[in-house]
Amino acid sequence: MKVGEREYRSIWKDGDKASTIMVIDQRRLPFSFDLMELRSVDDVCMAISTMAVRGAPLIGAAAAWGIWLSFLKHRNEQNISGSVLYDAARLKATRPTAVNLAWAVDRMMKVFESQPDADSLQREVSAICDNEAESCRRIGTNGLGLIEEISRRKNGRTVNILTHCNAGWLACVDFGTALAPVYLAHDNGISVHVWVDETRPRNQGSRLTAWELSNHGVPCTIITDNAGGHLMQNGMVDAVIVGCDRATANGDVANKIGTYLKALAAHDNGIPFYSAFPVSSFDMTIERPEQITVEERDEDEVRMVDGIYICQKEIPVSNYAFDITPARLITGIITDRGICRADKESIMKILS
Amino acid sequence: MKVGEREYRSIWKDGDKASTIMVIDQRRLPFSFDLMELRSVDDVCMAISTMAVRGAPLIGAAAAWGIWLSFLKHRNEQNISGSVLYDAARLKATRPTAVNLAWAVDRMMKVFESQPDADSLQREVSAICDNEAESCRRIGTNGLGLIEEISRRKNGRTVNILTHCNAGWLACVDFGTALAPVYLAHDNGISVHVWVDETRPRNQGSRLTAWELSNHGVPCTIITDNAGGHLMQNGMVDAVIVGCDRATANGDVANKIGTYLKALAAHDNGIPFYSAFPVSSFDMTIERPEQITVEERDEDEVRMVDGIYICQKEIPVSNYAFDITPARLITGIITDRGICRADKESIMKILS
Repeated sequence: MKVGEREYRSIWKDGDKASTIMVIDQRRLPFSFDLMELRSVDDVCMAISTMAVRGAPLIGAAAAWGIWLSFLKHRNEQNISGSVLYDAARLKATRPTAVNLAWAVDRMMKVFESQPDADSLQREVSAICDNEAESCRRIGTNGLGLIEEISRRKNGRTVNILTHCNAGWLACVDFGTALAPVYLAHDNGISVHVWVDETRPRNQGSRLTAWELSNHGVPCTIITDNAGGHLMQNGMVDAVIVGCDRATANGDVANKIGTYLKALAAHDNGIPFYSAFPVSSFDMTIERPEQITVEERDEDEVRMVDGIYICQKEIPVSNYAFDITPARLITGIITDRGICRADKESIMKILS
Repeated sequence: MKVGEREYRSIWKDGDKASTIMVIDQRRLPFSFDLMELRSVDDVCMAISTMAVRGAPLIGAAAAWGIWLSFLKHRNEQNISGSVLYDAARLKATRPTAVNLAWAVDRMMKVFESQPDADSLQREVSAICDNEAESCRRIGTNGLGLIEEISRRKNGRTVNILTHCNAGWLACVDFGTALAPVYLAHDNGISVHVWVDETRPRNQGSRLTAWELSNHGVPCTIITDNAGGHLMQNGMVDAVIVGCDRATANGDVANKIGTYLKALAAHDNGIPFYSAFPVSSFDMTIERPEQITVEERDEDEVRMVDGIYICQKEIPVSNYAFDITPARLITGIITDRGICRADKESIMKILS
């Protein structure tokens, strides 16, 4: 996607340097557009843990580059296998909830085991990244029809989409998941407006999604996470579209904490609720929500904003990063292979 | 309630000065406990608009003192009636949603019309304040049984209450509404813990409720507004108790924005959801939620925290301050006259 006049992906290999991966430091947006160099597995782990890079598809891509960096570092060691395996485990441990992280690392490890050379590994990362971008492009195409239909039903009046967190191109390699259909609708001349949930405690909505959308010229309005229910009660939301960090075989969706509350409100008001993600986010090994590990993050993420305490630091804080929306509240899943219902039969059909 | 070793109410007349009302500047808590002098209707209007004083019962009490201050200022004027009427209208216009504001002003205007002297008016304000405090004390007594019952059912294990915004003594004259039963349960030796919603955008939860509870020794944990649903899904909440700014004759409750989302989650997980308020918060003249005016506040409340922009200031913001929880999601209403169901018949019975 474009930033100013230049096309960017959210992650790429520095063309001039043999072993440097470039990312956008998402902690600094929207106030500063800073690039960040990742030159080691340590760098990648730190970038993922601190959420300088975040979003399920992007942390998968970053971890894949991490395996490549690990290989470059250890390739002349006798125990290269042990070292890369150790780094793979460290990368997987950075964040537990998104399935893409483990999926990408495992895919890289297969190549490492069969063709342990830098070129093969780099080709695999590039394939992962290109596939992620292509998947998101297809999610856009597949989701576009839903927005077009609402627009037709409203005789061209503005379609109001509510989204939670950031499932735009910054969270992916390009295009985004939840936002891909929105960008495409806007580009096709459909009048669309996005209610952007602030998304406490990290404010990915007010900081990243609002920045992304404005950058692309899509009208949007920032709201607190508390506001969506009231807007839905008052006919101000036509559809909710969110991303996904891991989905069960039955179509339950783990996504940023607070997603479940918006799904409840959508359901209560007869508003369609969609989760958009590449089929790689399905974890077909699990059937029940409680099998998903929900990450707990540092208390100070809630206590502090931009380095300033906004409440008393002595008071305990709980900071779960995700919640799980049960399939029964989900109208449909927008994937790179088409739209399906949130049930096992429908999911199996789209995967086959 | 106690702050340090001293007993405070949230509003009182300065004993040493003829016409000065004292309040706690709630914008400065929890970092600084500052008192603020209100010496004119202008001061009162400003304190209410900027939320230096907030909470439905407290803004009613403040507005009542406002009429008294207006009388003192204008008592030697020929057109005193016009001046006080004008000030009454200004006070009512400061915030549209809470019924207590108009109710308290109207009560004062009745006295002004029948006994227009400073003593009568001061007696009426004192009665309003004492009644509010006594109502809250009774809400505590009436709600205590609900917490006791949960405690018994859990064999004495900690009762986890979730609350939204601040409906403690700072929001009232003393004791609080939603928190009154919690304080009483704690004082009676019941193990109780409160999940405190941060309550964006003004953070009354993480700033005021957490401060109040800790001050009183009640264990509490701050969470983002997004987190409550996940906690409820995982059996970590035994009951939700919130306040109320205005209730319809059918038991629909206007309260801080985001309350509706918590009510949906409680309902979805079979957790009791209570709203606690004095019967003066019933507006028996209205039957339907859409008859309640929902205040929209300044965009910068969302954009700024402690004077710092936390998102791009160019992006539009929507800032509704309240939402309305439909009666069907409310398990019970805890009032100063007892507990009732959220339906007209039950409400009429308690009012009769």
